[in-house]
Amino acid sequence: MLLRKNETVIFIGDSVTDDGRARPVGERLSGLGNGYVRLIDCFLEADYPEYNIRTVNMGISGNTTADLLARWDDDVTARKPTTVVLCIGFNDVWRQFDSPMQPEYAVTPEQYRANLNTFADKTSAKMIWMTPYYLEPNTDDAMRKRMDEYGAIVKEEAKKRNIPCIDLQAAFADILQHRYSAFITWDRIHPGPLGSLIIARAFLKGIGAEKSVGK
Amino acid sequence: MLLRKNETVIFIGDSVTDDGRARPVGERLSGLGNGYVRLIDCFLEADYPEYNIRTVNMGISGNTTADLLARWDDDVTARKPTTVVLCIGFNDVWRQFDSPMQPEYAVTPEQYRANLNTFADKTSAKMIWMTPYYLEPNTDDAMRKRMDEYGAIVKEEAKKRNIPCIDLQAAFADILQHRYSAFITWDRIHPGPLGSLIIARAFLKGIGAEKSVGK
Amino acid sequence: MLLRKNETVIFIGDSVTDDGRARPVGERLSGLGNGYVRLIDCFLEADYPEYNIRTVNMGISGNTTADLLARWDDDVTARKPTTVVLCIGFNDVWRQFDSPMQPEYAVTPEQYRANLNTFADKTSAKMIWMTPYYLEPNTDDAMRKRMDEYGAIVKEEAKKRNIPCIDLQAAFADILQHRYSAFITWDRIHPGPLGSLIIARAFLKGIGAEKSVGK
Amino acid sequence: MLLRKNETVIFIGDSVTDDGRARPVGERLSGLGNGYVRLIDCFLEADYPEYNIRTVNMGISGNTTADLLARWDDDVTARKPTTVVLCIGFNDVWRQFDSPMQPEYAVTPEQYRANLNTFADKTSAKMIWMTPYYLEPNTDDAMRKRMDEYGAIVKEEAKKRNIPCIDLQAAFADILQHRYSAFITWDRIHPGPLGSLIIARAFLKGIGAEKSVGK
Amino acid sequence: MLLRKNETVIFIGDSVTDDGRARPVGERLSGLGNGYVRLIDCFLEADYPEYNIRTVNMGISGNTTADLLARWDDDVTARKPTTVVLCIGFNDVWRQFDSPMQPEYAVTPEQYRANLNTFADKTSAKMIWMTPYYLEPNTDDAMRKRMDEYGAIVKEEAKKRNIPCIDLQAAFADILQHRYSAFITWDRIHPGPLGSLIIARAFLKGIGAEKSVGK
Amino acid sequence: MLLRKNETVIFIGDSVTDDGRARPVGERLSGLGNGYVRLIDCFLEADYPEYNIRTVNMGISGNTTADLLARWDDDVTARKPTTVVLCIGFNDVWRQFDSPMQPEYAVTPEQYRANLNTFADKTSAKMIWMTPYYLEPNTDDAMRKRMDEYGAIVKEEAKKRNIPCIDLQAAFADILQHRYSAFITWDRIHPGPLGSLIIARAFLKGIGAEKSVGK
Amino acid sequence: MLLRKNETVIFIGDSVTDDGRARPVGERLSGLGNGYVRLIDCFLEADYPEYNIRTVNMGISGNTTADLLARWDDDVTARKPTTVVLCIGFNDVWRQFDSPMQPEYAVTPEQYRANLNTFADKTSAKMIWMTPYYLEPNTDDAMRKRMDEYGAIVKEEAKKRNIPCIDLQAAFADILQHRYSAFITWDRIHPGPLGSLIIARAFLKGIGAEKSVGK
Amino acid sequence: MLLRKNETVIFIGDSVTDDGRARPVGERLSGLGNGYVRLIDCFLEADYPEYNIRTVNMGISGNTTADLLARWDDDVTARKPTTVVLCIGFNDVWRQFDSPMQPEYAVTPEQYRANLNTFADKTSAKMIWMTPYYLEPNTDDAMRKRMDEYGAIVKEEAKKRNIPCIDLQAAFADILQHRYSAFITWDRIHPGPLGSLIIARAFLKGIGAEKSVGK
Repeated sequence: MLLRKNETVIFIGDSVTDDGRARPVGERLSGLGNGYVRLIDCFLEADYPEYNIRTVNMGISGNTTADLLARWDDDVTARKPTTVVLCIGFNDVWRQFDSPMQPEYAVTPEQYRANLNTFADKTSAKMIWMTPYYLEPNTDDAMRKRMDEYGAIVKEEAKKRNIPCIDLQAAFADILQHRYSAFITWDRIHPGPLGSLIIARAFLKGIGAEKSVGK
Repeated sequence: MLLRKNETVIFIGDSVTDDGRARPVGERLSGLGNGYVRLIDCFLEADYPEYNIRTVNMGISGNTTADLLARWDDDVTARKPTTVVLCIGFNDVWRQFDSPMQPEYAVTPEQYRANLNTFADKTSAKMIWMTPYYLEPNTDDAMRKRMDEYGAIVKEEAKKRNIPCIDLQAAFADILQHRYSAFITWDRIHPGPLGSLIIARAFLKGIGAEKSVGK
Repeated sequence: MLLRKNETVIFIGDSVTDDGRARPVGERLSGLGNGYVRLIDCFLEADYPEYNIRTVNMGISGNTTADLLARWDDDVTARKPTTVVLCIGFNDVWRQFDSPMQPEYAVTPEQYRANLNTFADKTSAKMIWMTPYYLEPNTDDAMRKRMDEYGAIVKEEAKKRNIPCIDLQAAFADILQHRYSAFITWDRIHPGPLGSLIIARAFLKGIGAEKSVGK
Repeated sequence: MLLRKNETVIFIGDSVTDDGRARPVGERLSGLGNGYVRLIDCFLEADYPEYNIRTVNMGISGNTTADLLARWDDDVTARKPTTVVLCIGFNDVWRQFDSPMQPEYAVTPEQYRANLNTFADKTSAKMIWMTPYYLEPNTDDAMRKRMDEYGAIVKEEAKKRNIPCIDLQAAFADILQHRYSAFITWDRIHPGPLGSLIIARAFLKGIGAEKSVGK
Repeated sequence: MLLRKNETVIFIGDSVTDDGRARPVGERLSGLGNGYVRLIDCFLEADYPEYNIRTVNMGISGNTTADLLARWDDDVTARKPTTVVLCIGFNDVWRQFDSPMQPEYAVTPEQYRANLNTFADKTSAKMIWMTPYYLEPNTDDAMRKRMDEYGAIVKEEAKKRNIPCIDLQAAFADILQHRYSAFITWDRIHPGPLGSLIIARAFLKGIGAEKSVGK
Repeated sequence: MLLRKNETVIFIGDSVTDDGRARPVGERLSGLGNGYVRLIDCFLEADYPEYNIRTVNMGISGNTTADLLARWDDDVTARKPTTVVLCIGFNDVWRQFDSPMQPEYAVTPEQYRANLNTFADKTSAKMIWMTPYYLEPNTDDAMRKRMDEYGAIVKEEAKKRNIPCIDLQAAFADILQHRYSAFITWDRIHPGPLGSLIIARAFLKGIGAEKSVGK
Repeated sequence: MLLRKNETVIFIGDSVTDDGRARPVGERLSGLGNGYVRLIDCFLEADYPEYNIRTVNMGISGNTTADLLARWDDDVTARKPTTVVLCIGFNDVWRQFDSPMQPEYAVTPEQYRANLNTFADKTSAKMIWMTPYYLEPNTDDAMRKRMDEYGAIVKEEAKKRNIPCIDLQAAFADILQHRYSAFITWDRIHPGPLGSLIIARAFLKGIGAEKSVGK
Repeated sequence: MLLRKNETVIFIGDSVTDDGRARPVGERLSGLGNGYVRLIDCFLEADYPEYNIRTVNMGISGNTTADLLARWDDDVTARKPTTVVLCIGFNDVWRQFDSPMQPEYAVTPEQYRANLNTFADKTSAKMIWMTPYYLEPNTDDAMRKRMDEYGAIVKEEAKKRNIPCIDLQAAFADILQHRYSAFITWDRIHPGPLGSLIIARAFLKGIGAEKSVGK
C-alpha cells in the first residue's frame, strides 16, 4: 500500500472534498465532513488500524486551483503532511459554463497546468492526484469535453512527475452505464453518498489498500 | 388574444408552476410564487389592465399527472375557472431516471396520455397546454429523449382536441445555443428566473398577447 | 441598442435597485436580487445572449445620493464598468416626509443636483439615468410634487450632459389609470414584481432593446 | 363617563384592533396587543382604577364585517360583555383596491350597512362604534372617498340606533395638517404607536373619560 | 411648556428608558423602543406637532450612573441636545440587593450624588431629572427605603441646581393604592405598558404640557 | 424515612414543580425538569440508591387547584403512585393580585380548602403536602398575608387527616433574614436554583431522609 | 449472494438503523438516513447495479422488540418486502441499565425471544437477522454480559429457523483491539460513521456480496 | 470550614466545571452554569449566608491543563481570588483515547504533573484540588486505569504541597455499586445533575461544610 504507518494525509480540494468538514481544521472522525474523505478514513481505520493514519480534510467549497494556490502554504505546507491528496479542477471548468461573463472566476487550461506544477514544486511530501470528473456520459457534451481536457492535463503532469494519479472519471464509468446521472446527483458534480463511496474506493484501489477493496 | 376580459385563469402543474406560491390558494400578486405564473400575471397587468384577468396558481411541487388527477375536482373544477393552463409531465419522466426502483413514483407514456385526456374530459373551461421540457440540448440523452416523447404526446392529444399547445422545449432552443444549461439551472428542469421569463413569454406569444411580446 | 457586446453594466441605487442582491457584489443570476435588475438581465440573456452583457447590481437599501457619493469610487469606478445606470432620489425625498425632525437623513434639491453632477464628473463610462417616482397619481400630493421636482432635476441635468434619461414616473402613468397604487405596493415606492417589470421594460425601451419590448 | 364600574368591554375589529393580542382570548395587560386597546386599558387603569374595567381584545387581522358576522356569537355574545366596541370596515374597503379581481374578499356598502345592523340586532350589551379611516388627506383620492362613504354609513346607522359613535377620520385631521401620512404609517391604515394613541384618546374623549383627556 | 420649538431632547438612562430602542441611535418612531420615551414622543406629536420636537432615546439596559459616566461624552454631549432627560439609579440600588457579593456592580449613595453632579457639570443643555422608583408600597421594605434615599438625592441636587425634577415614585402612589404591584410588573422595576404611561404622563405634567395632560 | 423501597412518588403542582419537565410524563433524570423534583431525585439516588425510588414530575406551569382537579384522575390516580406529593396554591392566590378583573382565574380560600379535601378523598396512596410560600418577608404585605392564609389551610387540613405537611414558607425564613428576596428570585415565587435546593431539603428533612440532610 | 435481482429489502430496527432516515418511509438515497442502511445501498448500487435492489429503511430511534411488534403489520408486512433485515435489541437491554426504575421500558430475555419468534412467524419473506452489540471489550461488564445474552438468543433462534444471522458483536472485535471504544462512539451503542461501515460490511459479507467485500 | 467569610472562590477546569456558565465571567446565580459550581454556591448560600462567599466559575469546556496554563494569569491571578478550586485532567486523558492520532490534543502524565505544579507556583491564594474521575467501575479498563494514574498524580502533588485534595473518583464509588454508569451519564465523564450533586457534596464535605453535609 502506498501509505506507511503513522502518516499524516492531507486531502485538499473543493466541495467534493470539503462536504461539511469542520473549520478551521477538518480532522478526527467528527471533523472530516460527510464525503469521500471520511469514508476513506473509516476504511483505513476498519482495515488498517495498526497504521495509525492521521487524515486531515482541508477542502473548501467553490475553490479552484487559483484559490488553492493562495492557501497552499498555510493549509498544506505548514501542516507538515507526509502525503498530500489533490482533487481539484471542477470549478476551474464549471465557472466557464455557468458564469461565462465572469472569466476571472474560472481557470484556463494553461493556468490549470501551471498551478498543478506549482503545487508539486511547493510540496516535498508524497503526492497523490485525482482527476476531476463530470457525471455526464456523453463525451461530446461541451462541459464533459472540457472536463476531460482538464483530466488529461492532470494525468499528463502526474505522469511526468511520477505522481500516482487516480482517474475518477473512469471510476464512474460503470455506474453511468446502469444509472442515469440524476440518480447519483442533480448537478453532475457533487457526488452524494453513492459517488463518495465510488471515489473513496477508487482511491483505496489506487493506493493498493487491498484489505479494503480486494485485489 | 386568447384570453377575454374578466377571466379566471388557473395554472396547474408541479414545481415549475408552484415556485413558492401561497397555500391553500395561490393568488393575488403576493400569492403567485416566484416563477412564470407571477411573471405572466405582471405582463397582463402591465399591458392589459383593462382585461381584469384573475390569475390563480395551483401548482404543487413534485406532482405528476397522477397527483393532478387526485386533486383536479378540488383544485380546478370547484374553482370554476374560465381557462385552465396545464404544465405537467416533468416528474412523470424524472422519477423514471432518479428513482428506477420505485416505478410507482413515475407515470408511463400510456398512463400520461390517458391522464391528459381525463383532464380534458373533466374540464368544460377553455384549456391551454404546455409541454414539459428538459434543458439538455443533446436529443440522444436518455432523459431528453423520454421528455420529448412526453412532449409529443401533449402535442398529439392537444391537436386532436383543438387545444392550444405551447411547446416549451422549442422555446428554450435559442438560449441553449448560446448558453450551457448550467447557466440557467443546475438540474435542467427548475427554470430559475431566466427560464421562467422564457416560459412566460412563450405563453404570452402562444396566446397572442402582442402588447407583451410584439408580433 | 445603446449597449454594445461584452459590456459591464453597473446598476447603482437604493432598495428599488438592491431588492435582496448578494453582498458584497451582486452579480450572476443568483446574486442580482429579485427586482428590476434581475429582470433586465434575464431579458438581455433571453433576447441578446450573443451580447454577453455582464450585469452588476450595486444598489443598497436606504441610500440617498449622499450615500452613493461616499461609495462611488469603490462601488462604481473601481469596478471599471462600461455603462453605469443610476436610479436614485427616492430616499432623498422620502426622509423629508417621514423624518422631518432629522433633516440630515434627507438631501435638498440643490445638493441632489450637485450630487448628480458629481457622479457624472467622476464617471468616464457611459451613463444612463432613471428618474425616481412616486406611485401616487395625485400630482398635488406633497410628496408626489416633491418627487416630480427631483425627477425634473434628473431630466434637466441629463439633458445638459446628453445622458440618456428614462422617466420612470411616466412609465407608471398607464397602470395608475387602471389600478389603485395599493394594488402595486403599499408604500408607493417599493415596486414589487409588477413595478419591477414596468421599470425593466421602461429601461429596455429606453435603450432601444427592440427584441425585448417591440418597437 | 359612558362606562360603569365592573364592566367587561370587548373590542372587536381587524388588525387595527388586534395588533398582536394573545390567542384565543386577548386580555390582561400582556394579552391586549400593542395597539389602541392596550392604551385604552392603561389609561383606564391609571385614571379609573376603582372602576375595575375588564378589557378584552377580540380583533383579528384582515377581518371584514363578513368575518365578524361568522364569529360574533362565539367571540362576542358568548363572552357576555356589558359593552362592545366595534371598529371595522378597513378591509371591507381596502380589498376593493388591492384585490380588484377578487370581489369576494371585499364587502359592498349595502352589505356593510346590513352587517352593522345585524351586529346591533344580535347585541343586547351597550355598543360603541368607531368609523374606519384612511390616512390620506386628499378627499378626492379614490380609496379615501370610498372609506368616507363607509364612515358615513357607520355614523348614519349609529345615529338611527342611538349608538355612541366616534369619528376616527376626524380624530386624525389635525395631525395630517402637520405631518405627511408616511410619518405615521406607510400604508395609511395600520396606525402604529402614534396613530394608536390618537385612536385611544378619541375613544376616551368620546366616552367622556375626562380624567384621561381633560374636558 | 418647558420645551421650545425645534428642540432635540435626549433621554438617557437604563432599561426603563431603553425598552428595546434601536441601536446605535434610538430615534424616529420605530427606533424609540416600546416604553415611556416613545409614548412621550407620541403625545408631543399628537398635541404639539408644530413644535417639531426631535426625541432621541439613548437608554441602555442595566446601566448605572457609573456606566452613564463612561458614555456621556459620546452619547449625550456629542449629539448636541437642547434638553437632556435623566432617569437613572434603579440599578445603582438593585445590584446592592441581588448581587451583594459583587459590590462593584452597584453605586454607593455618595458616588451616585457625585455622578449626578458630574452629569450636570458636563451639560450645557437644559436638564430634566426623574427620580428612580420601586413599585413596593411598603416604605419599610429594605430596597424601597434605599431607592427612596436615592430619589431624595436626585431631588436635593436638582433643587440646588434649579433643575426641574419629576418624582416618579410619587407618580405611582395612586395606582399602588388600587392595584398590587404584581399587576403592573413582576419585579417592581420594569414598568410595562401601564407603568410607562404613568411615567410619560408624569413627565408631560412636569414640563407643563397641558394639551397632553390637562391642567 | 417516610418513603419505602420501590415506591413510585408523583409530585403534582404548578411551575414551581414543573420547571421544564418532559411531556407527557416527567420521569427519568432527563425528564424531571430543573427544579426541586430533580434535586430530590438526585439526593435519593445519591444517598438511598438501594431504595429504587421512582420519581415522577407531573407539575404544569400556571396550574391552580382547580386545574389539578380536572386532571387528577389521569395524571395521578391512573399512574398508580404509592406516594403523592402536593405543592399547590401559588396561582390560586397570585391571580387575585395580578388579574383582579378575571376572578375565574383564581381560587377562593373556601374552594381551595374544598379542593385539597377532594384530592385527599380521591387518593388511596400516601400523601405529603407542601404549603405554598411567598418570598416576601413583610407579613403585612397583602399577597404574603393571603398566601399565609392559604398555607394555614394546607396545614389545618393536613393535620385533620394526619397527612405529613411541610411548611415551605418556614423553610425560607432563614435565607430571607440574610438576603433580599430579589437575590433569590425577581417575582418572589419561582424559586430558581437556590430556592429549589431549599425546597428539596425541606422535603427531605420532612420525610426523615437523614442521610441527605443530617439529623 | 443471498439477494436476488429486483428485491425489496426492508431494514427494521432502532436508532442504529434509523440514523435520520426520511419519514414516513425511508427510501431512495436521500431518504435512507446517514447510517449503515445507506452504506449498504451505496455498495449494492456501486457493485450490483444490475440487481436493481430496492432498499427501505424503517428503523425508529428508541425502539425495542415490543415497539416493533406494534408496527410490524404496517411497517413490514404491508410493504410486501422480499427480504426483511432485523437489527434490534439494543434498547431492550439498555433501558435495564439507564432506567432501572421503569421496567416497562425494557424487554426481558424471555419476551425478547418470544418477540423474535413472532416476527418470524408473521413474515413470509426471507429474513436476515443481526445481533445487537455493545462496544465494550470487557465481557464481564454487566451491560456487555447482558447484551451478549440477547445476542445469543438471536443466534439460537435464527439457527432453529435457518435464518441467516450476522454477529455484529464479532464484527467489532478487531477494531476494539486497536481502538478504545470512545474512539468510535461515546455511548458504546450509536455506531457513527466508522461503526456503520463495519456493520455494512459485516452484512455484505454475511450475504455473500463478494464484489463489495472480497472473498 | 476551610472557607472564611467574604472569600472570592474561583473554580477553574473544563466542561465538568463550565456546564453552561456565563461568558466572559461566570458569576452570580444566573452565571454559574448548571453544574456542581452552582450547586456548591446554593449550598453555601442556604447554609452559610453570613459568610458572603463570592463564587466564580471560570471553567471552559474541552480544556486540558495545557489550556489552563495559557489562561491562568488572565482567568485566575488577575481576578484576585482568595481560594482557587482546580478540577482538571479529564481531557488530558480522554484525548489519548478518542484522538490517538492527534497526540498534541492530550497531555502526558509528566506534563500533567508539571502543569499542576506550575499552577501551584503561580498561585498565592489558598488552593483546593479535585481529582479527575472516570465513571467506569472496572479498574482494568484502559481509560479508567489511565485516569487513576492522573488522579494519583493530583493526590501526590497535593500532598507534597499540603493542598487539600478531594478524591472525586472515590466519591462516585458508592453510586457505581448500585447503578450502571449509563444511569448517570452516557460518556462516563459529564456528570449530569446526579453526578454534579455528588461532586458538590464531596467538595463540601472535603472543606468541612458540616451544615451542608452533616458530620
